[in-house]
Amino acid sequence: MHKTNVAVVGVTGYTGMELVRILNSHPGFELGAVTSRSEAGKALHEIFPFMQGTRAGSVAITVPDPELVAGICSLVFLAVPHGAAMDIAAAILEQKTRVVDLSADFRLRDPGVYSRWYGIEHRQQKRLQQAVYGLPEIYREQIAGASLVANPGCYPSSVILALYPGLKQGFLKAQDIIVDSKSGTSGAGRVAKTGTLYCEVTDSFKAYSLGKHRHTPEIEQEVALAAGTDIRLTFSPHLVPMNRGILSTCYVNLRYSIKTEQIRDVYRDFYKDSPWVRIMPEGVLPETRWVRGTMYCDLGFVQDPRTDRLMIVSCIDNLCRGASGQAVANANLMADYELDLGLCTPPLMP
Amino acid sequence: MHKTNVAVVGVTGYTGMELVRILNSHPGFELGAVTSRSEAGKALHEIFPFMQGTRAGSVAITVPDPELVAGICSLVFLAVPHGAAMDIAAAILEQKTRVVDLSADFRLRDPGVYSRWYGIEHRQQKRLQQAVYGLPEIYREQIAGASLVANPGCYPSSVILALYPGLKQGFLKAQDIIVDSKSGTSGAGRVAKTGTLYCEVTDSFKAYSLGKHRHTPEIEQEVALAAGTDIRLTFSPHLVPMNRGILSTCYVNLRYSIKTEQIRDVYRDFYKDSPWVRIMPEGVLPETRWVRGTMYCDLGFVQDPRTDRLMIVSCIDNLCRGASGQAVANANLMADYELDLGLCTPPLMP
Amino acid sequence: MHKTNVAVVGVTGYTGMELVRILNSHPGFELGAVTSRSEAGKALHEIFPFMQGTRAGSVAITVPDPELVAGICSLVFLAVPHGAAMDIAAAILEQKTRVVDLSADFRLRDPGVYSRWYGIEHRQQKRLQQAVYGLPEIYREQIAGASLVANPGCYPSSVILALYPGLKQGFLKAQDIIVDSKSGTSGAGRVAKTGTLYCEVTDSFKAYSLGKHRHTPEIEQEVALAAGTDIRLTFSPHLVPMNRGILSTCYVNLRYSIKTEQIRDVYRDFYKDSPWVRIMPEGVLPETRWVRGTMYCDLGFVQDPRTDRLMIVSCIDNLCRGASGQAVANANLMADYELDLGLCTPPLMP
Amino acid sequence: MHKTNVAVVGVTGYTGMELVRILNSHPGFELGAVTSRSEAGKALHEIFPFMQGTRAGSVAITVPDPELVAGICSLVFLAVPHGAAMDIAAAILEQKTRVVDLSADFRLRDPGVYSRWYGIEHRQQKRLQQAVYGLPEIYREQIAGASLVANPGCYPSSVILALYPGLKQGFLKAQDIIVDSKSGTSGAGRVAKTGTLYCEVTDSFKAYSLGKHRHTPEIEQEVALAAGTDIRLTFSPHLVPMNRGILSTCYVNLRYSIKTEQIRDVYRDFYKDSPWVRIMPEGVLPETRWVRGTMYCDLGFVQDPRTDRLMIVSCIDNLCRGASGQAVANANLMADYELDLGLCTPPLMP
Repeated sequence: MHKTNVAVVGVTGYTGMELVRILNSHPGFELGAVTSRSEAGKALHEIFPFMQGTRAGSVAITVPDPELVAGICSLVFLAVPHGAAMDIAAAILEQKTRVVDLSADFRLRDPGVYSRWYGIEHRQQKRLQQAVYGLPEIYREQIAGASLVANPGCYPSSVILALYPGLKQGFLKAQDIIVDSKSGTSGAGRVAKTGTLYCEVTDSFKAYSLGKHRHTPEIEQEVALAAGTDIRLTFSPHLVPMNRGILSTCYVNLRYSIKTEQIRDVYRDFYKDSPWVRIMPEGVLPETRWVRGTMYCDLGFVQDPRTDRLMIVSCIDNLCRGASGQAVANANLMADYELDLGLCTPPLMP
Repeated sequence: MHKTNVAVVGVTGYTGMELVRILNSHPGFELGAVTSRSEAGKALHEIFPFMQGTRAGSVAITVPDPELVAGICSLVFLAVPHGAAMDIAAAILEQKTRVVDLSADFRLRDPGVYSRWYGIEHRQQKRLQQAVYGLPEIYREQIAGASLVANPGCYPSSVILALYPGLKQGFLKAQDIIVDSKSGTSGAGRVAKTGTLYCEVTDSFKAYSLGKHRHTPEIEQEVALAAGTDIRLTFSPHLVPMNRGILSTCYVNLRYSIKTEQIRDVYRDFYKDSPWVRIMPEGVLPETRWVRGTMYCDLGFVQDPRTDRLMIVSCIDNLCRGASGQAVANANLMADYELDLGLCTPPLMP
Repeated sequence: MHKTNVAVVGVTGYTGMELVRILNSHPGFELGAVTSRSEAGKALHEIFPFMQGTRAGSVAITVPDPELVAGICSLVFLAVPHGAAMDIAAAILEQKTRVVDLSADFRLRDPGVYSRWYGIEHRQQKRLQQAVYGLPEIYREQIAGASLVANPGCYPSSVILALYPGLKQGFLKAQDIIVDSKSGTSGAGRVAKTGTLYCEVTDSFKAYSLGKHRHTPEIEQEVALAAGTDIRLTFSPHLVPMNRGILSTCYVNLRYSIKTEQIRDVYRDFYKDSPWVRIMPEGVLPETRWVRGTMYCDLGFVQDPRTDRLMIVSCIDNLCRGASGQAVANANLMADYELDLGLCTPPLMP
Repeated sequence: MHKTNVAVVGVTGYTGMELVRILNSHPGFELGAVTSRSEAGKALHEIFPFMQGTRAGSVAITVPDPELVAGICSLVFLAVPHGAAMDIAAAILEQKTRVVDLSADFRLRDPGVYSRWYGIEHRQQKRLQQAVYGLPEIYREQIAGASLVANPGCYPSSVILALYPGLKQGFLKAQDIIVDSKSGTSGAGRVAKTGTLYCEVTDSFKAYSLGKHRHTPEIEQEVALAAGTDIRLTFSPHLVPMNRGILSTCYVNLRYSIKTEQIRDVYRDFYKDSPWVRIMPEGVLPETRWVRGTMYCDLGFVQDPRTDRLMIVSCIDNLCRGASGQAVANANLMADYELDLGLCTPPLMP
């Protein structure tokens, strides 16, 4: 197998950590560079003692110099905050090195929507036009040829995979969709904040950012493309006292009567080439632990005959499928590897 | 203060345990009898070592003999499974002793609805007609005079308090209500089952009983009374890896435009006599830990101008407000004590 | 009952929070002032939304001015970091107002030991000589008359109560004592740090500060007084993924053969006036949840006939018995209330 | 690579589950049979929905017939309770099929010790003499040639690896060793019991089986062989509210003065051929999450100059290194694969 040199820019957060975990066991990618402004000069295992003794553990952390990184590597994973990512991406692309950007900077096709939701102007609008939305089940061909992939957000990954086939096929109504999502705490990042201290999160549950979470326009953008019409939906995120995992409960109305098993058939067919989307059989509802540490997206379907409403329950691992694993899947396509290379381990249970 | 002798029938489960915890510090109630078929003959502190050294800890557990219990006590808390509760309640009432039943047996006014959802016939339909639904904010007067109080279910307590004033006042649409509820694991009871083992629940999240949870008709019954019209709603329970707490996210459409602060005013006014319903101010959403171990019901309100939908977030403690604390509140009214006697401690944080 | 005006200086941390929780329901103490440099100007319920609607919730937070506070209150709880506490205490004492200091500043009788372990000079050595170590089971008389009480550390509270009677009585060897302690995460404080983020603590377990934790000399000081001889022991703290609770497993050799039940008798007798020390019967070992939110210290005893060693297992709640509850108990003695006034609720289970 | 057909007898528990997880991704082993009396007739993914879509997920569960299983497979993993395992092992060995037994039945070389601690007679004493203790770092050669491997217990794996080199080398005293161990809850098994329900375990910590845990003689047997003298030690297990992981804090006295870095050198040298034993550098103490889902055993060393005592902290994953992963490592040696084949993924963090 040919080897591809890759870099991780911004390694200290949870998505950087997850990239290191996955790349360490990946047979195609070599970790050519990892960067962190604050930790430069150390070996990876010094900041991540759990990587001691592994292949990646001895890699030296460097300062994030786009040109240098682009010189060593043919593909760069950007795991830095939105706002910062766009210019680094542009600088790397300038050197003809390809980029998978895990931030939100290139996900929204309309720079006006970006500035409205993220509160800053988009400074790389030309690059934005080249970006491909990195959901492999939907944009597989485009990703393979892309130089810039906008890796989807965690919540959007869970929701778009749940709604896309039904909207595309036409039996789901585009109006009045409600998505009630619940995420593990790693989604809140690794920056020290009182609100995500252990004692503030454990043994409790809360909603947050109701009506204004930044993943809303990203979800709407993609499901609208499936439906062929504009979509306004309600998206409500909640915080779960657990490490990883997102469960989205989607409430959708049907445009016409259809048996639940037929719905499952449509979804099975739509995802027949995906190694990861699993349609739960009648009577089984997905649980986040079933996808822990994996690329799986588990979908469960229930119709409520009393209210004529369809509930689709979608589970992913927010760090793997919702961020770093999906980034590696995209990189697999870009490097002409099998889609699931290095990404086919079963979940860690319990 | 006059003292009232009370009994707890079925003390080994989590609601029995919570009754003991609350009654132990209650200035009006004396724990005259506690019963458990399997543990009879022991002192309470032998099965609950955490009660060693407390007033209640030395109470002897007896077999559940309704006549005997009714002979000693003037009020009995029934913490036994539905199906079993109805006949015990009838036997106790026969002795002119009053009953607060924590099971579902007397919550549904229509015995046909009961048999449809619970799969058994109602054998005490005459008693059912006497039963008062024990939500003190709504049925305070009737509870005070009742001989049989049907203590509300945990989910219904959180949902009815969230929806009642708005439906009563008329600005909430009765159609298309969706309630996405999340409960701590104590709601699943204390019976040994693989599905509620620590390693099956922790670090995971799941939905269950979608479209068919037995609390659905109970919620519908009460909110329909508020709205003055039949209501069919979607109710979706989920399991959270935490001990106590329910958070219900209610999605409701508005019948006419109304400012969120006005909505808060309506709720504040409706609950002005309740020591426990707290209306969160603008920008604050409730968290289950804020009500841990208490009777509080915290309500947060958000309008989504993009979809013209109102979200009401309701938090309660499922064991206290959702079961045993509410049972004691009802007993307070029945015994002519202050509503919040023995029920006004702040939450345990963290 | 006479009322005593008290103040909490430094209200934003977990011990401040716990003081507020306890004082809110206390029949003798009035919360005359709460202070926080960063949150001054707000009402308590604005930073602690769970206190909304409670008596204490509406108290206004002020800047920490010792003279002002001393002018209003006759007793002040200091919940500020060590190093900062000593001068504030001195300023308050200057105004003839009494102080319960929850920091480590007045716990070590020898200022040399203090400076060696805490790395700073003791600037209030005259006050240090007046300080009484606030473990009510041992220093009850002195506390009642003290103007300055040094509230014990959390680990020391659990360990001293476990070892004191046996060393005093003389059947425990003073040599080769090993204490392996495990603490919930609230013991690490409420300051934002990466190391105590939810995702860094949950589903994991670690040892820390082996051989150098600052509670070591505090433990040694008090158990040496019991033994009547200098003691050097090994103290090893560990971090548990839970909110509250300390369990200390103490390994001690016996000076002579003695039956375990006799040991229990000695401890029962020593603690006969304490409302909170509970001696577990044969076959029962304490669990931290059994003391959650309370002043209880549960002690379990096991002799290993194979190695002739005694194991004493001690459980307390680190925030209540190990900090704020004990502070209130000390204040009760100082204000001539019953020792357990406002401190006799059973644990919150589960 | 040659393929080896293996079976898992007793697949429904956590060790069976973990075997399936590991074997699913193993390049050398084919899952020829999985058995469960209660679940026979189903496909694996029907009882383990998280295995849907994986290679192993479609394997059919059969009843446990030793002859049948031995006919299909050349190596069998026994994941059934002690007492039941010994006869099944004998029946399989009779068919010339090799066995890795995860139960305790063949771990204790002396059948008298077995019957004393486990309360039953050993019925397969001839086979017991053939059994090799399956700790690859110590018995690598013997394991490779064995027909019956006794897979070590979880606690013993963590403790023996911590003590062996120092006792062998001679600087650790064989007397007065104290081992204070803490385990995640998966160690308690997957059988439904009230004591391991989520709400009984979470947010709490306890000791159990002090002075009488069955892993005690197993630890003593192996460390005595290292020391060349009989050893009686104190072993104290505790239960941690987490899924996986064991941390053992070992307190040992030194026979002579030796620098901590020299101790690390001895251990590094002793484990130089092990891919998994990691010696933590000065200032770093292991955490159970750093070994989650892996075969790593992380060792940290601290000397307390105040008490002249050495503390060795050892972390393993109880299900992987402490059971199923180690079983696969042993099978690797037996099948002439690389020791770490299929066992070299980094931990799942967070």
